[in-house]
Amino acid sequence: MNIKLEEAAKIVGGNIVGDKNITINAFAKIEEAQPCELTFLYLDSYNKYFAETKASAIIVKPDFPRTRNDISYIVAENPNKAFSKLINHFFRIDYKLSGIDSSAYIHPEAAIGKNTAIGKNVVISAGCRIGSNVKIFHNAVLLENVQVGDNSVIFQNVSIREECRMGRNVIIHANSVIGSDGFGYDIDENKVFHKIPQIGIVILEDDVEIGSNVSVDRASIGATIIKKGTKIDNLVQIAHNVVVGENSIIAGQAGVSGSTKIGNNTYLLGQVGIAGHIEIGDNVILHPQAGIGKSITKPGNYFGSPAKEIKEAFKLEAHYRNLPEYVERIKQLEQQVKKLQAELEKSQ
Amino acid sequence: MNIKLEEAAKIVGGNIVGDKNITINAFAKIEEAQPCELTFLYLDSYNKYFAETKASAIIVKPDFPRTRNDISYIVAENPNKAFSKLINHFFRIDYKLSGIDSSAYIHPEAAIGKNTAIGKNVVISAGCRIGSNVKIFHNAVLLENVQVGDNSVIFQNVSIREECRMGRNVIIHANSVIGSDGFGYDIDENKVFHKIPQIGIVILEDDVEIGSNVSVDRASIGATIIKKGTKIDNLVQIAHNVVVGENSIIAGQAGVSGSTKIGNNTYLLGQVGIAGHIEIGDNVILHPQAGIGKSITKPGNYFGSPAKEIKEAFKLEAHYRNLPEYVERIKQLEQQVKKLQAELEKSQ
Amino acid sequence: MNIKLEEAAKIVGGNIVGDKNITINAFAKIEEAQPCELTFLYLDSYNKYFAETKASAIIVKPDFPRTRNDISYIVAENPNKAFSKLINHFFRIDYKLSGIDSSAYIHPEAAIGKNTAIGKNVVISAGCRIGSNVKIFHNAVLLENVQVGDNSVIFQNVSIREECRMGRNVIIHANSVIGSDGFGYDIDENKVFHKIPQIGIVILEDDVEIGSNVSVDRASIGATIIKKGTKIDNLVQIAHNVVVGENSIIAGQAGVSGSTKIGNNTYLLGQVGIAGHIEIGDNVILHPQAGIGKSITKPGNYFGSPAKEIKEAFKLEAHYRNLPEYVERIKQLEQQVKKLQAELEKSQ
Repeated sequence: MNIKLEEAAKIVGGNIVGDKNITINAFAKIEEAQPCELTFLYLDSYNKYFAETKASAIIVKPDFPRTRNDISYIVAENPNKAFSKLINHFFRIDYKLSGIDSSAYIHPEAAIGKNTAIGKNVVISAGCRIGSNVKIFHNAVLLENVQVGDNSVIFQNVSIREECRMGRNVIIHANSVIGSDGFGYDIDENKVFHKIPQIGIVILEDDVEIGSNVSVDRASIGATIIKKGTKIDNLVQIAHNVVVGENSIIAGQAGVSGSTKIGNNTYLLGQVGIAGHIEIGDNVILHPQAGIGKSITKPGNYFGSPAKEIKEAFKLEAHYRNLPEYVERIKQLEQQVKKLQAELEKSQ
Repeated sequence: MNIKLEEAAKIVGGNIVGDKNITINAFAKIEEAQPCELTFLYLDSYNKYFAETKASAIIVKPDFPRTRNDISYIVAENPNKAFSKLINHFFRIDYKLSGIDSSAYIHPEAAIGKNTAIGKNVVISAGCRIGSNVKIFHNAVLLENVQVGDNSVIFQNVSIREECRMGRNVIIHANSVIGSDGFGYDIDENKVFHKIPQIGIVILEDDVEIGSNVSVDRASIGATIIKKGTKIDNLVQIAHNVVVGENSIIAGQAGVSGSTKIGNNTYLLGQVGIAGHIEIGDNVILHPQAGIGKSITKPGNYFGSPAKEIKEAFKLEAHYRNLPEYVERIKQLEQQVKKLQAELEKSQ
Repeated sequence: MNIKLEEAAKIVGGNIVGDKNITINAFAKIEEAQPCELTFLYLDSYNKYFAETKASAIIVKPDFPRTRNDISYIVAENPNKAFSKLINHFFRIDYKLSGIDSSAYIHPEAAIGKNTAIGKNVVISAGCRIGSNVKIFHNAVLLENVQVGDNSVIFQNVSIREECRMGRNVIIHANSVIGSDGFGYDIDENKVFHKIPQIGIVILEDDVEIGSNVSVDRASIGATIIKKGTKIDNLVQIAHNVVVGENSIIAGQAGVSGSTKIGNNTYLLGQVGIAGHIEIGDNVILHPQAGIGKSITKPGNYFGSPAKEIKEAFKLEAHYRNLPEYVERIKQLEQQVKKLQAELEKSQ
């Protein structure tokens, strides 16, 4: 990469303060940037790196105090988005894999689309239907009748069980499992568990992305569904018959129990846990480690375990931290009341 | 599938209200059921789907108000169990794999039982003893001297380290790891960690089921043991030297630290965390996200982090939510006492 | 193994009380030890096993009451460390793998050091540089330009994405993923997420150990870094651009969100969750299930979610458990004040 700062500013639609002709040969985080690199400042907590950064240029907000003269600025409303725009402009997502490797096994009754790449030791079982421009990396395993839509990417060591269906532009990162058996048992009078056949499937709609080491269980009956555009981070647990709406987010190590339904544009942050058989509506944000035992229909932010609306949660947490003071005040009241009683008795 | 409703009622031991001769061709969840399908109603929170379901028949409790005439009913004490019974009757658990694939590697000093199926690229190392009617799916790896009992199923991309032993009817879902090193180090005077050899093994007894992406560490010395009939869900962490009793449950994303012993018929629900070197007795239920730092010997339900008996936990949580009111009452008391003091002074 | 007790005592630098000539043929946990085995007692909670242990010899602290005469003692300051020393003396860590298997794929433009072992179906892509005495177990996949230092061990089914770099003596346990895409998206005005290319890498420095089923995401730009000597347990999530210092510990199921920096000698215990873009200093211990939303610069122990210094956390927890009592005291105060008001009115 070798561009003038002017070109970068044009791409993000920002104004230059400083030298528009300097050369940029890389993008970098502010604390790591070197000369000839372009960085950005977005969160206030990173302002401390500004005085020392070796970057030649920096994207800043309009109101940022531009106190250094040895650095050039691109001024933009949202430096974070501007930086992403540049990354997107110069770095296409391009996972390298081409051709169908001779060590891959493709069942004669599987269908593979045009320009699809299949890596080493991949197993594609009978009845699989793989679209065009798909990439399936080494050692991934697809059991019978799996469907994968066009332009999807399945990384190495991914396991996809029989009958599961993926739409177009789906990405599944390494070592994730789609369609493992749901956790369903009958218990007998001796408290012995008997496995209930899990005869359902998993459906991942278009544009879904699944992180690494994720488990999405097949439905006991019917389908576990992740709807269009929803993104799931690493080490997430999705139990049987869960339905997640469109354009939602499930961050790292969050878990959703069986048959729970989650709405559209709803975000589960890290390590959130949701009970089974409940419903979380649209536009709900569940903050990290929140524990949800009951349905939530009202949009908004929720925090704590058990979770509360965030305003209430913060208020309660503040009261909690004040408990020693409150107890002290109770003690003082008790002493004052005792004294008052004594005085009153004396005065009578 | 194509049965008369009468046949279904006979299997579950329920009574028909409506037309016993209608044809059922599938089972489905109430919110997804179509004509000619049989569904069930168990949890009250699903009653809302009753008015709209397209199912031709439904299993309900005796006291359920059967207000629709265009649907036939099977009346049963426990519709949930009845439905499972039907699933179990018509759908045997049958993971499709047969033969020993030529791409699998089986060490000449490994023993393989009758009718055992081994998938593509499987690695079975020296000294392994695999029983009869076992299925080991593609790309699974078994290191030296691993034992697998009859009728067990090991899914794709599972890793089993050397010397670990599985009983009969064990199921290990995709991408799980049995026998990775325990997390054990000595620390020196410079705070540098030195790895302690983990020379123990893992034993999974008969009828144990392990979900996908689970880690069960080998013992530092001796054995990490999961006893007969215990079921473990996805993404669970079992540290070295843990012993879990019989017919227990460990739900998704729960974790048990080193050397802790867990009793029989004890259930760890989702995201529970248990400290090391403690004991959890029989018949204990740890509710989701519970954090356990001390041994629990008394059977019962526990909730919270740190965990308390559930009645106490709920009472404390109710008080917690009332904190703003209590603080208000303290303020009022303070004002009243001040006023009383003033009046008493005046009166003296 | 077959040694005299005297030899064991010499190795750990302890004194024998009892018969120095007895033969030891194995080491074992106190609750499992058999005759001719040596065990140890360190935690008080295990003292209950002392009366019954079948061990022939036991390592104990100087002040331990040596009430049994049918057992020989090694007296040592730290029986735990002494036992580890013995394990380390007699059991070298030795993962068995040798040679380069013919089923492994090694790209002609990859470089492999001396005495390096590569298992079955391993994929080593173009540009990889693998050191000497390295072991890469079956079905592991290394994409383009991955670097692995001398003496490192990569277990089966591990996935390492392109460009990631590992130092010397690194261990990565089974089914872990190094370098999966960071969880980074732009959101548009329709609340649709657009993936930001994750163009950074992962660097694991010398002596780092990574458990099984761990996810370490590649940086959005720059590098996600785990520094020298840090040990990571199973099922841990390390998000993009995280930096973890030297000789730190991250226990099972803990998670660190994007761009957070963690210091040296800092320990995250089980299921800890840390927010993004914050800093945790050196010598900080985060207790199990702690939730960290803000930077922590002060060394010490922290507990709770949101986390507090442990002394304060325990004090607050004690107050929390006393809430019913406090509420009772408020009620009594209210009654007393009411009574005082009435009496005062009467007396006026």
